[in-house]
Amino acid sequence: MGRLIARRPVLRIGSGGASRRVDALAVEEPLELRVDGRALAVTMRTPGHDVELAHGFLLTEGVIGSGADVRDARYCDSRDAAGRNTYNVLAVGLAAGVPAPDAGVERNFYTTSSCGVCGKASLDAVRLRSRHSPADDPVRVAPEVLAALPDVLRDQQRVFDRTGGLHAAGLFTAEGAPLVVREDVGRHNAVDKVLGWALLQGRVPARGNVLVVSGRASFELAQKAVMAGVPVLAAVSAPSSLAADLAEECGLTLAGFVREGRLNVYTHGARITDPRHFAHPASTSHKAGAV
Amino acid sequence: MGRLIARRPVLRIGSGGASRRVDALAVEEPLELRVDGRALAVTMRTPGHDVELAHGFLLTEGVIGSGADVRDARYCDSRDAAGRNTYNVLAVGLAAGVPAPDAGVERNFYTTSSCGVCGKASLDAVRLRSRHSPADDPVRVAPEVLAALPDVLRDQQRVFDRTGGLHAAGLFTAEGAPLVVREDVGRHNAVDKVLGWALLQGRVPARGNVLVVSGRASFELAQKAVMAGVPVLAAVSAPSSLAADLAEECGLTLAGFVREGRLNVYTHGARITDPRHFAHPASTSHKAGAV
Repeated sequence: MGRLIARRPVLRIGSGGASRRVDALAVEEPLELRVDGRALAVTMRTPGHDVELAHGFLLTEGVIGSGADVRDARYCDSRDAAGRNTYNVLAVGLAAGVPAPDAGVERNFYTTSSCGVCGKASLDAVRLRSRHSPADDPVRVAPEVLAALPDVLRDQQRVFDRTGGLHAAGLFTAEGAPLVVREDVGRHNAVDKVLGWALLQGRVPARGNVLVVSGRASFELAQKAVMAGVPVLAAVSAPSSLAADLAEECGLTLAGFVREGRLNVYTHGARITDPRHFAHPASTSHKAGAV
Repeated sequence: MGRLIARRPVLRIGSGGASRRVDALAVEEPLELRVDGRALAVTMRTPGHDVELAHGFLLTEGVIGSGADVRDARYCDSRDAAGRNTYNVLAVGLAAGVPAPDAGVERNFYTTSSCGVCGKASLDAVRLRSRHSPADDPVRVAPEVLAALPDVLRDQQRVFDRTGGLHAAGLFTAEGAPLVVREDVGRHNAVDKVLGWALLQGRVPARGNVLVVSGRASFELAQKAVMAGVPVLAAVSAPSSLAADLAEECGLTLAGFVREGRLNVYTHGARITDPRHFAHPASTSHKAGAV
């Protein structure tokens, strides 16, 4: 995990006085993504799982729909001043027949057409079209399974424990078995790494799966779930209004504040099994008093 | 605060059973920023203080350096399908002689030149050039003042209390007096709103001030502080490696994990007054046991 953690000197100050230490910080570095030879985007990310990140990014931006749409992905021979490969430039070649993305696709729901968002409802203005709608996914998840997932995610956050600096995302089965967990300084990158993994495993559309994120559920994260065909998105913290609106419209079950044995279901609650019989066995003990 | 909070139905599930309620969610909507008639960027933001947001964004992206660089800023007459103004499109006119930004400036440290980040150190590849360096700012801040700021920030977070969904940023004097606090679903937007306010108040470069953010300190937030000439950045949570590197190089004092009467100082600790005499009066009582 050498490139995931950087050591920096720190002056720790508290009521007991001050002391000099060496602190472990989460590494943040730029990754430039090139597609068919053209620089497409740079994201600030935690190094590692970059090929998955690239696949997840291209999937959730609508550039590719399956692993077969990518011919190859490899690091460029990019060197820093000392002659070392930075591993900060990744080149993706698209398969024959896959249209190259427009420049600026990185934010193709940010950058806008000439008519912009005038005269459009908010959602229309920023929504991408998904090839993998979760709307007809018949999966059902027990509330006690959902409520337990953030603890599983947290238990697998190895770098967070040492730095406190990383977001996490994980993909789980409907029975609560973890398929993959990824950490990153950027929450969107953690999700892209998870969904890129799923794509490379032939698991997209991710039917029957639950995507769990360690923080809040923004519009962007809800859109990524929809783009990968994930039917259930569970966030440890609050969703935004537009995340709930997109989830409602696209058939995504959105749960928020999933923690301490409780959860709020904002949309498509029919996928949650009978909540009247909900009883979370660990609700009285786990994380009690934790900050 | 009508547009800051949206009401959505929610199914609350806990060990006591399930109940249907109406929940307050933080509003997230797109804001399209136009500069001199051209669409420049769209950001997902909490509506409100949009003119400040635009000024802060243009400042921290290097497009403008003072309020005089902007001729006017006003909402376009953008209408949704029902004929209502969306207030989601803001047009900024630059003053005579101010060069229009390149398209894609929104991410001008993301989008790259043809040579990309090959052959450059990480920092060189993504750094903007600031007109307002904090390096020579002689301000000094007492550690007990710094340690108390997150509580002041939290006390002023009105919308968070109702939604749990917003990041906050605040600008303070070196004595701990709050100048402005802003909330947003995007942490970068909260900072842009604060720094845009400062610009419009003639307070940029923000010499002698402390910028406090409610979450982690990423490279992007550290860069925004530098671009506005802020000498001290205090984050409630962890900094990233690149945030610390940028702060070190640019003369920014970076403090992290500023909470519960403690703080870590990562760079330029000479601005912190003698920490040996540090004693935080509230350290034994405030936030004890809080999650």
